[in-house]
Amino acid sequence: MLDPVALIRRKRDGERLPAAEIAAFIQAYMRGDVADEQAAALCMAVFFRGMDDGETAALTDAMIASGERVDLSAIPGTKVDKHSTGGVGDKTSLVLIPLLAAAGFPVAKLSGRGLGHTGGTLDKLESIPGMRVDLDRARFLDQVQRIGLAIAGQGPDLVPADGRLYALRDVTATIESLIAASIMSKKIAGGADTVVLDVKVGSGAFMKEAALARDLARRMLAIGRAAGRRTVALLSDMSQPLGFAVGNAVEVAEAAATLRGRGPADLVELCLALGERAGAERARLERLLADGSAFAKLGAMVEAQGGDPRALEVPERLPQAPCRTDVAAPASGYVTQVDALAVGRAVAELGAGRRHKGDAVDPAVGVILRKKVGDAVRAGESLATVLARREGAGAGELLAAYRIGAAPAAPRPLILEVL
Amino acid sequence: MLDPVALIRRKRDGERLPAAEIAAFIQAYMRGDVADEQAAALCMAVFFRGMDDGETAALTDAMIASGERVDLSAIPGTKVDKHSTGGVGDKTSLVLIPLLAAAGFPVAKLSGRGLGHTGGTLDKLESIPGMRVDLDRARFLDQVQRIGLAIAGQGPDLVPADGRLYALRDVTATIESLIAASIMSKKIAGGADTVVLDVKVGSGAFMKEAALARDLARRMLAIGRAAGRRTVALLSDMSQPLGFAVGNAVEVAEAAATLRGRGPADLVELCLALGERAGAERARLERLLADGSAFAKLGAMVEAQGGDPRALEVPERLPQAPCRTDVAAPASGYVTQVDALAVGRAVAELGAGRRHKGDAVDPAVGVILRKKVGDAVRAGESLATVLARREGAGAGELLAAYRIGAAPAAPRPLILEVL
Repeated sequence: MLDPVALIRRKRDGERLPAAEIAAFIQAYMRGDVADEQAAALCMAVFFRGMDDGETAALTDAMIASGERVDLSAIPGTKVDKHSTGGVGDKTSLVLIPLLAAAGFPVAKLSGRGLGHTGGTLDKLESIPGMRVDLDRARFLDQVQRIGLAIAGQGPDLVPADGRLYALRDVTATIESLIAASIMSKKIAGGADTVVLDVKVGSGAFMKEAALARDLARRMLAIGRAAGRRTVALLSDMSQPLGFAVGNAVEVAEAAATLRGRGPADLVELCLALGERAGAERARLERLLADGSAFAKLGAMVEAQGGDPRALEVPERLPQAPCRTDVAAPASGYVTQVDALAVGRAVAELGAGRRHKGDAVDPAVGVILRKKVGDAVRAGESLATVLARREGAGAGELLAAYRIGAAPAAPRPLILEVL
Repeated sequence: MLDPVALIRRKRDGERLPAAEIAAFIQAYMRGDVADEQAAALCMAVFFRGMDDGETAALTDAMIASGERVDLSAIPGTKVDKHSTGGVGDKTSLVLIPLLAAAGFPVAKLSGRGLGHTGGTLDKLESIPGMRVDLDRARFLDQVQRIGLAIAGQGPDLVPADGRLYALRDVTATIESLIAASIMSKKIAGGADTVVLDVKVGSGAFMKEAALARDLARRMLAIGRAAGRRTVALLSDMSQPLGFAVGNAVEVAEAAATLRGRGPADLVELCLALGERAGAERARLERLLADGSAFAKLGAMVEAQGGDPRALEVPERLPQAPCRTDVAAPASGYVTQVDALAVGRAVAELGAGRRHKGDAVDPAVGVILRKKVGDAVRAGESLATVLARREGAGAGELLAAYRIGAAPAAPRPLILEVL
């Protein structure tokens, strides 16, 4: 018989919890025999005491067992899934997934909605007119089988324990607890053979410091490998936004441009590095970007999911914000900082993100950066263009995200570490 | 506007919380705007990070403000209240309160039910036929005014925040968090001028180590003094039970005998020491025990509260367990240990205690110890008599609580420290 109070006390006092008891706790929580306040107390005890790899693997298994697993075995080839811990301007999935599909790696990506400064991948895709992400399981699998890729909402049956625990952790300042198990349970339940993890580091990321990000990556790798999945990870920079576009529709437009060979250098580089880690050859990936194959895959996916693929070539078909305001550089010099967190907050304030579960996301608002770290700038030149519902909104916040110095500054390296 | 998640995070990260925010959190919790899981997460964060004296005082104030205060100002004299952190065989209140009342210190004691190996003071009193402890406030105050003492249930209006938080801490392994504020909020709201604290140390106590008990005592003293109450404390031994009787009715009988000058030396000594700390002269207290004045006060209280005072003189009028089993010493020698925790658990198993709120307590069952630490014993002599509902119940557990050695052993000092 599970004694939840004794279990909480043992973790509180620094004991290692046996796998069977972790499983019993999660089962009892899902049945309603363990109360939210008990799960919250355990999450906070875990925040202070941690869990070792064995405990984390047991927790991940218990969470997966609370729902269905996706069976991708009928689909030939090495199926890849990808996860990013989230950043500002991070439209990597929108580029990497069609690119991998074009390279012959089927991708069946299930996503949650989450909270963030901008919407998540699902929200960004929904800015494409007609696009649906609520595919049922059969249609989702059929699409991957047919065209090699699909991105859809994960639905309530994939790791329901994570859904409940995430909501709990969100209101109890314990998101950091269980984070590795939370992410990996969904990747493992999602059925891919290879899991590619992009762990962001910097002001705009959940992990502000490389050491913490490395620890999270290491924990996720251990879980994935314990579950028999090929699991690889990069630590990548999130001190300034990735690419130039930050928002929803603007990020779709930038991803589409990238797939047509006209992407920002940092975004291209990150997608190539992640694609290589997934098992593709770099030269081949470059060719697939150059020859339109990867772009065609995105178009095929958008079309299969009811969206208007012409919006990928003609960005004016995507939702447009009524007001565009340029943020002028107050002085000449070199950009030494574009603080990702400040940009993220400004864009969230414009309405691009979601503060609470169920909030609507404004697809049209956002920011297009004109200058990034290392760029020379003249006084009066545009640093960034704000796309807003109200004239001038967000301009002050964007300006505050920039630092301009007298001497050239090099940006931080994009790829901090390959794990 | 209170942001409960941010407040939890700040405590989690080791920050000191401002008094106004602590008050806002408690108010929001009582209104239902802070959820149980958030309060549980904060309690667990406090377990790890602690609160300083200023935070603890603010928490105590906020908890008191959730309900009514008892106004004792109409009662002349120095009103005393007493709290014990709880132990096995701890019938001190039943002796000390009549003794102080006889010495001219009015005592208006409000108690909760709590959980423990035996019942609390209220449960013990209720083993007296007819005895009522559910006095309304007017009757309670009138009785103190008239005869100088009353012991009653605290009711739902005294520090309701503590009632809710206690229930929450009990199921989330965070009883240790907020414990000083929890105890002192009720003492301060109870209106006494002097608060006497008996902090138990040892296997049968909540605090197993003197350092932890001293820290708790120090924190309670700080709260009491910050609230302008004369507050004093003792650390007393709870490595073996106090006195000989452990249970409910048997403890009433032992308390009554003590008030008639026939008490166990340790119980008498503790009551005198606590009485002195409360402000009475030791010689006077000894006289009041010897001349029957203190016993008369207990009788007056029992009578005023509907109980049968004859049960104090004729213990057979108290509930009697059907089965009495003597536990025979397995060898000759000296008693070197009577483990209070083991005795407490055995008595709880007999039915004397309460595992869950609302459980009924069996007034009749319990144990009468015949030998304590330092006593010589011959093989086959009775170590203890178990009073039970079933023949032989508890005897094995009692035997296991004893250690018998070849050489005489001195008991631990009863009064470990005077604060």
